[in-house]
Formats: sequence, structure tokens, C-alpha cells
Amino acid sequence: MIKLVLLRHGQSTWNLENRFTGWTDVDLSEQGIQEAHEAGRLLREAGYTFDIAFTSVLKRAIRTLWIALDELDQMYIPIENAWQLNERHYGALQGLNKAEMAEKYGKEQVHLWRRSYNVPPPPLDWDDPRHPRFDPRYAKVDPALLPACESLELTLKRVMPYWESEIVPRLKAGEKVLIAAHGNSLRALVKHLDNMSDEDIVELNIPTGIPLVYELDDNLKPITHYYLGDPEKAKAAAEAVAKQAEKK
Amino acid sequence: MIKLVLLRHGQSTWNLENRFTGWTDVDLSEQGIQEAHEAGRLLREAGYTFDIAFTSVLKRAIRTLWIALDELDQMYIPIENAWQLNERHYGALQGLNKAEMAEKYGKEQVHLWRRSYNVPPPPLDWDDPRHPRFDPRYAKVDPALLPACESLELTLKRVMPYWESEIVPRLKAGEKVLIAAHGNSLRALVKHLDNMSDEDIVELNIPTGIPLVYELDDNLKPITHYYLGDPEKAKAAAEAVAKQAEKK
Repeated sequence: MIKLVLLRHGQSTWNLENRFTGWTDVDLSEQGIQEAHEAGRLLREAGYTFDIAFTSVLKRAIRTLWIALDELDQMYIPIENAWQLNERHYGALQGLNKAEMAEKYGKEQVHLWRRSYNVPPPPLDWDDPRHPRFDPRYAKVDPALLPACESLELTLKRVMPYWESEIVPRLKAGEKVLIAAHGNSLRALVKHLDNMSDEDIVELNIPTGIPLVYELDDNLKPITHYYLGDPEKAKAAAEAVAKQAEKK
Repeated sequence: MIKLVLLRHGQSTWNLENRFTGWTDVDLSEQGIQEAHEAGRLLREAGYTFDIAFTSVLKRAIRTLWIALDELDQMYIPIENAWQLNERHYGALQGLNKAEMAEKYGKEQVHLWRRSYNVPPPPLDWDDPRHPRFDPRYAKVDPALLPACESLELTLKRVMPYWESEIVPRLKAGEKVLIAAHGNSLRALVKHLDNMSDEDIVELNIPTGIPLVYELDDNLKPITHYYLGDPEKAKAAAEAVAKQAEKK
């Protein structure tokens, strides 16, 4: 039986300010840091060890991973940083808060961008200084591959090839894998693993800072999945995430 | 011109207690953490960026690197953790303090182990629970390659193949490389780069927490090297390291 652990990063400073983040490289808030420590403690107390960890190139996910590995006393394992595991790119909405968005685009339209599977938000202009092609962390990526906005569907389309080529071979080799990433890049993996519909996946809220364990068979089909720690706490955390999304 | 930056980790908790560390995975002290932040700030203020970082599998070096990359806002670069960049393995001396060593082996003998280039300390027994073959971080390494004790010469002999096969190709490809490691694994690199004699290298004291920059030509021959920041501070730090060594 193969075990895979998914970990969504905790609260960021822009969550606090209710601003759309996407690929903006904001840091964890104090609460987010505490969530990462708690995730590491849950893994340690359950006796988890890992052979390799994957994360994005955004510091809120990297810091979550570093803190969890520190709690696990496993700082030495290899870490792969992949832009393909980044959060969904929120295009021209990045940096705006709820009020600014409603004013600029109308409430209905914003709701559609947030709740549909395949409607991308307005893109960043090619020359917008926020376009990823200007960020040195993507310097080695073909600019044609870098998104200027993404729907959840488009997010899935860049997560899945990375999953297939880099993560699946590790799992099939029997390696114990931890993935510390973002709400939407993890949704992509969960949709694939659990074969969820386009409608169901947008309704799924993965709580932050609680390790999500998948037990997989040899063909990487899920046998079961569960959150570590108190199930009531995981449920409450998922509801809090859902509520926060509505609030936006 | 190719730039390579070497960074020796700061004070560890066992430095404070004056105990021989070697491959024991002790953490940075509070002062060591501050040294790592200061190293990161020096690099940032001098405008350094990196394409890749190398470190050991020991947390005092890894944490030094993580803190420096955090200060540089470059947490996303790839990090290679290599046991070949570990500190010199101090064999059966690991964990002993000055008084215990002098009592067990005599002052003269201890001085020889510490100050000679090629006399290794007494090895750990093959069945000693401290032997690296029992540590999960070395589980994928052929146990025959794992040392039970090392002279500086033996340290060099496992650092250099890694340097040649993993680090040199990156430098030759024009990548900007940061190496966060230990007093003796860095001595190995400096001896090679500066073509130093066996006698001279044991006298060289690399200060902790101060980035050491090598400017190299296309054949990786040093043009010059220097410490970042205040030269007087680097000199004082090297003297403090030398003094601490004498004190032991």
C-alpha cells in the first residue's frame, strides 16, 4: 500500500486582507506559521517519514514545507520546487480585494470566475510587470508556457503532466511522498485521484494545515483517504475555508 | 567571470558546550541563527542571486542555508543535500568534550588528531548505534562508503568527487552557486581551489556566517577571493574560530 500526503499551506497575509493572491509571492501570516507547525506535529506524532517532498516556487508553500520538515526532524530529504504546483493564476484579479473586484467587474461576473470550472479570469497583459515572464524564478521556463490567467481547468492541465512525469514514478518506486501546495493545485490532484466531476471539485474545500493522507493501490487508485488528527477539527477547518471563500 | 559563494554555518549548540560534533546532527544555537541571518543580509545587500544551492544533510548547515535564502527572498531555488558535504566524521570522539577526551586519550594524542592532515581519530565500531549506517538519512548510501572516522585528508577524498561530478558542471554552465557547509568540507574545497599544502590547510580558519566569495576563470582557477562585509569583522571572526579550536 502506497501512502501519499497532501498539505495545503496555512493562512497568508493576503488571506487576512481578503485579497486575491494567485501567483503573488505573499508570505504566511503568524497564524499560517502556527498551522504549519501543527501539521508537522501531527505527522510526527503519527510516525510519518518521507523520502522526498514536492512544493511550488511560492514561499507560503515552501515555508509550510520547511516548518513541517523541521518538526519531523527530516530537513535533509530532497525537495523539488515546481512552478507547476503553484496556486491557480488569478490573472488581472491578483492583488484586488472583494470590494475592488465587485466595483470593477460586477458581483455576478466575479462569482462566475470564482465558482466555475473552466472560465478563466481576465488575463494580465503581456507587458504587465506582474506577468510571470518578468519574474526571475520562471527564467528557465518557456514564456509560452507561463499563464497570464487560469481557470481551475487550466490549472489542472499544468499540474497533471508534472504529476505524471515527476511524482508518479516516485510513488511507483515505493517512495514516501509529501506534497505541500495550494488550494487549487491540490484540488487538481484530488480531482484526478478521486475521479471527481467538474462540478464537484469546485465545491471541495481542502482545509489548510491539516495533512490529507491518501492510501493508494499499486495502480495509484485510492483505497481510502483521511485527514490526520481530530476529524471534527478537519471538518471545522474545511467549513471555515468554504466560508472565507463565500465572504470574498 | 564565475562567482562561487561558500558559507560556513554558524555556532551550534555543541560549540557552546565545547563538544566534538562531526556527523552528530546538532542544531544552531541562537547566536548561530543570528549569524545565518547576517550572512543572508550581507548577500542581499551586495545584490547576490543564485541558481542553485548545495548543502550537507546536517541541519546546522541546512538551517543556515534556509535562513540565508529567506533573507535573499530566494527560497524557491533548487537545493541539493549531499552527505558528501558533511562535516569531517570525528569517529569515537563525537560527543566528547575537551576534558573527557584528554582523560580518555591523553592531551598529546588529541592534539595530533585535531591538527594533523592525515591521522584519523579512533573509529566508531561497526555496531555502534552512532554509526551512520543506522541513520535513515544515509539509507540509500552504500554502507561501505560511509565513514566511521575521518582525517581531513579522508574528508577531502569524499568531498572532491562530489565537487567534480555535481558542482563543477553547474559552474561551467554559468550557474550561480552557493554552498552552505562545514569547517572541514569547506577546507577541502578551499585547499583544492587555492592549491594549498597539507600543512597550510590545517592552519586555515574559515569564519562562520560570513560569505566567502571566489571569483573563478573559465577553468575554475581562482582570480581572487574575499569575505563579504567588513574585512576587520571577518578577520576577527577567523581569529575567534582559531581561538575556540585551541581552547578545545
